[in-house]
Amino acid sequence: MLRLQLDESVTFYTDVLGLIETGRDDQGRVYFKTWDERDHNSVIIREADSAGLDFYGFKVLDRATLDQLESDLNAYGVATERMPAGDLLETGERVRFRIPTGHIIELYAEKTDVGGTLPYVNPEAWSPEAEHGIAPIRMDHILLYGPDIDGAHAIFRDVLGFYLVEHIVQDDQSDLAIWLSCSNKAHDIAFVRHAEPGRLHHVAFLLESWEKVLRAADLMSMNRVAIDIGPTRHGVTRGTTIYAFDPSGNRFETYCGGYQPYPDWKPTKWTMEEVGAGIFYHDRKLNEAFLSVVT
Amino acid sequence: MLRLQLDESVTFYTDVLGLIETGRDDQGRVYFKTWDERDHNSVIIREADSAGLDFYGFKVLDRATLDQLESDLNAYGVATERMPAGDLLETGERVRFRIPTGHIIELYAEKTDVGGTLPYVNPEAWSPEAEHGIAPIRMDHILLYGPDIDGAHAIFRDVLGFYLVEHIVQDDQSDLAIWLSCSNKAHDIAFVRHAEPGRLHHVAFLLESWEKVLRAADLMSMNRVAIDIGPTRHGVTRGTTIYAFDPSGNRFETYCGGYQPYPDWKPTKWTMEEVGAGIFYHDRKLNEAFLSVVT
Amino acid sequence: MLRLQLDESVTFYTDVLGLIETGRDDQGRVYFKTWDERDHNSVIIREADSAGLDFYGFKVLDRATLDQLESDLNAYGVATERMPAGDLLETGERVRFRIPTGHIIELYAEKTDVGGTLPYVNPEAWSPEAEHGIAPIRMDHILLYGPDIDGAHAIFRDVLGFYLVEHIVQDDQSDLAIWLSCSNKAHDIAFVRHAEPGRLHHVAFLLESWEKVLRAADLMSMNRVAIDIGPTRHGVTRGTTIYAFDPSGNRFETYCGGYQPYPDWKPTKWTMEEVGAGIFYHDRKLNEAFLSVVT
Amino acid sequence: MLRLQLDESVTFYTDVLGLIETGRDDQGRVYFKTWDERDHNSVIIREADSAGLDFYGFKVLDRATLDQLESDLNAYGVATERMPAGDLLETGERVRFRIPTGHIIELYAEKTDVGGTLPYVNPEAWSPEAEHGIAPIRMDHILLYGPDIDGAHAIFRDVLGFYLVEHIVQDDQSDLAIWLSCSNKAHDIAFVRHAEPGRLHHVAFLLESWEKVLRAADLMSMNRVAIDIGPTRHGVTRGTTIYAFDPSGNRFETYCGGYQPYPDWKPTKWTMEEVGAGIFYHDRKLNEAFLSVVT
Repeated sequence: MLRLQLDESVTFYTDVLGLIETGRDDQGRVYFKTWDERDHNSVIIREADSAGLDFYGFKVLDRATLDQLESDLNAYGVATERMPAGDLLETGERVRFRIPTGHIIELYAEKTDVGGTLPYVNPEAWSPEAEHGIAPIRMDHILLYGPDIDGAHAIFRDVLGFYLVEHIVQDDQSDLAIWLSCSNKAHDIAFVRHAEPGRLHHVAFLLESWEKVLRAADLMSMNRVAIDIGPTRHGVTRGTTIYAFDPSGNRFETYCGGYQPYPDWKPTKWTMEEVGAGIFYHDRKLNEAFLSVVT
Repeated sequence: MLRLQLDESVTFYTDVLGLIETGRDDQGRVYFKTWDERDHNSVIIREADSAGLDFYGFKVLDRATLDQLESDLNAYGVATERMPAGDLLETGERVRFRIPTGHIIELYAEKTDVGGTLPYVNPEAWSPEAEHGIAPIRMDHILLYGPDIDGAHAIFRDVLGFYLVEHIVQDDQSDLAIWLSCSNKAHDIAFVRHAEPGRLHHVAFLLESWEKVLRAADLMSMNRVAIDIGPTRHGVTRGTTIYAFDPSGNRFETYCGGYQPYPDWKPTKWTMEEVGAGIFYHDRKLNEAFLSVVT
Repeated sequence: MLRLQLDESVTFYTDVLGLIETGRDDQGRVYFKTWDERDHNSVIIREADSAGLDFYGFKVLDRATLDQLESDLNAYGVATERMPAGDLLETGERVRFRIPTGHIIELYAEKTDVGGTLPYVNPEAWSPEAEHGIAPIRMDHILLYGPDIDGAHAIFRDVLGFYLVEHIVQDDQSDLAIWLSCSNKAHDIAFVRHAEPGRLHHVAFLLESWEKVLRAADLMSMNRVAIDIGPTRHGVTRGTTIYAFDPSGNRFETYCGGYQPYPDWKPTKWTMEEVGAGIFYHDRKLNEAFLSVVT
Repeated sequence: MLRLQLDESVTFYTDVLGLIETGRDDQGRVYFKTWDERDHNSVIIREADSAGLDFYGFKVLDRATLDQLESDLNAYGVATERMPAGDLLETGERVRFRIPTGHIIELYAEKTDVGGTLPYVNPEAWSPEAEHGIAPIRMDHILLYGPDIDGAHAIFRDVLGFYLVEHIVQDDQSDLAIWLSCSNKAHDIAFVRHAEPGRLHHVAFLLESWEKVLRAADLMSMNRVAIDIGPTRHGVTRGTTIYAFDPSGNRFETYCGGYQPYPDWKPTKWTMEEVGAGIFYHDRKLNEAFLSVVT
């Protein structure tokens, strides 16, 4: 759930990014999904004085899994809180907890399948909504900045079943950044070590092809969206990318590709000499905005 | 493991398909992997009088999982056999069983990580081998033909943890074809109902982009590879595709895209009226070779 | 100017092919242009009992060039006729003549520049119309069937300044097919030797990329357009292609790429052994519909 | 002809840019062509203390055209000099003249057709050389910096038959930059107004697709080529692009796309408010290196 200037943001998220608004609740929160996502919502925004992230949630397989994971978290020493079903539209009970980077993470088992824009019987390959705005396939992952990324790593790995896909290792052998997956996606969540807790670097949306990345950059230009960097490629995950900012200054990424890892894979390691190439493969150096702007 | 005319096939699999030969054993079997696969082998061929498939194997997480799955299979009434470690090069013990479509499936927990063509530290985005021949990313999935696909479906779903992603449903509500995944891939294995047991329709190799599909078609033409159909798109999975034949007449697919499903997704259903569009989305009709040629 | 069933065709040409209707005249002719073409029209259709082509026109640089070319045609023994300015909407006087393949060709110097969908000052890279239907860049070329293609070749080469880019040469050294250019396009017009005079094989529309070719095939499927063949590649010109039929049975092509030749280039020759690869590079053989259906 | 550090540059032009060396002359000049160019050479380099351009040449249709253009140039007040046939390998007599921006331009009618890497009879769609290094289709155009671009414009327009495709117009209505074509290419030569005469901004090489632009960027990274900017898109011509530097500091461009104009087209105009978007469409602002580095 992102904090934003609301009206301008709704226009941006629907017409420029090309999400579909699926509802508003009595707290004024606005819910969105992509044209291809089936559950009721994947992105929620609310009015706020400053940009940033309220929480980030993962769907688990079923209620039994939710209960088990909560119990595992508690056993691991992580305090949890239950958010009631219906607090978010079309969403069941949520288990909420704070991780050592200062971020709030949530788990939930139930969200209404309202369907994508294609039917479940004899669908076409895509629907007209796939060309309304940037129109990503799905909300893909998030990159968070905070101090104790080792503590966050431990919880995701030891309790929640994520595995390390790539990491940037500092000269003292501590991780500067970690990319974690609980699927065959190159990453479901990532962390960068940073003094301030609870910061958001970006939310990423998946595009289908490098040509769709070009189209996204074109649409950003047409709509005067401030691009941070891109189109380019990451060394980490090999994914292609554009970073840009929503009207409230939250960075978002339109991401494409990346390999599909398995849990038995040995992580890929980046050393500090090549951190530039790891982040931006073509330039092989970091840009200033990428380093300094978090919300 | 595919049955083949050996010499011509080795040339085909290395220079045209662009796999990397990783070894030969004392039975004359030849082992291959793609440029990006890390384990020692994903495709094995042997000399034979007729084309076809000996068995298809899945790697499981670890030895404990292998033992558990074997026990689960036996409890489910599926007889298993252990193939000794080392029978296949760089491969641990395998649990082998026959499924009701007549095919032999194997599970194993250990295969030597010999590394891809990129290092685990500070890799480039790809290596020169990614342009040698068609050079797929990975062996992706298999489509098998046989009589009792419901029995096969039950084992994969109830014992092995696969879920149904798409199916073609006949007018009597029985499945004509099923696509099953144990990951976020659109399918890891698929079955079509067919009178003869144990038949292979195709082995699929993953390409990165629609432009790589064009390149694959170009290379097939340059090398006088017999194309069955394509480049085109499937309705099922939305993936783009070419079907063609190896020198022994085994059909292979160069496949790209497809969406990335989750286990909680409702399966997509195709009715017999639109089965043509399900298989070949552009023509919306099946071609003769697709239907009749299996090995 | 194409002969068609009108209402269904207007819908097809606007919503499926994605042309823009720019006018109708008092004879009921309907005028279209692409989103990126600047002159008032490039495709005109009229109601008729049978499909086919009335004439095909080329714009020349100015009135002086028009007069000179008419004089050159007459000197070459080609009778010409002047069609008055205004007979076609927003179009100046036209010089009309019949070529030995039985087709009517026209030249004109003036057609109103109504502008593309982008302004002439500070344009964006593309406009929303570039995503309405297949939305080609331009009407690109035409392929005509008729008996005396050598006679047509001579007029285009000796009088009109075209040059031969590729040809298929029969065993008796006569041309079976010729591709001619008066620009840096791989072809502006092409002819195939055929017993019946005045036949149309296809009108081609230019797409920007192989991915747009895929998109065109998807849109054809969604709109139940009958595809003849494709997506595939031609050996001749290397262009990628789909052939399909409009509602009246006129074949059209969505074409992409092809190299950019110069007048000093030596023509590329195809022999009868490889004519299949010349036409359809991937399959290396002709399909039945391609050979037999002309309008 | 570019001035360079020779050994390192030969390696760069062959293995990284992927040109083919076609010869060396007794002055030590090294000749290159692309895999798809047919004439003996399109790029020549020589050892020099400083980077930059010696001259840029255009091939004309035949000797009669060469003589006529020389006569026209002289009549226009441009002094010419004949360089003898054979001074450059496989190249006929050249007409050389200096334009008001301080650059030397040459015309020639004859250069040996040594053939591309594909035969003139029954060619494949591409050859293995198309994947050796960046492997552009052709040397495409050049951008020159110098003071009197109006004078250069006049010669190219009034004598040589070029037409203005796009221009950036300053507030005093003078041109800051002009893009000129003598073909259906978006530009064959371009000029930017600049205090110092005779400067080179970049030489451009044509790529086939946006995906080849990504591949070029990847290869630049792998070979530690210094990228100035890109992959991105130009507003001017809509082409996609990367600017980078050869080992001697000469900027080169890997360019793709752009529309195909005709001589009767109204030029596209950019005002100073949008010059950023005209040059770099995505960022809508110029970068420092682009502005300041010329050789």
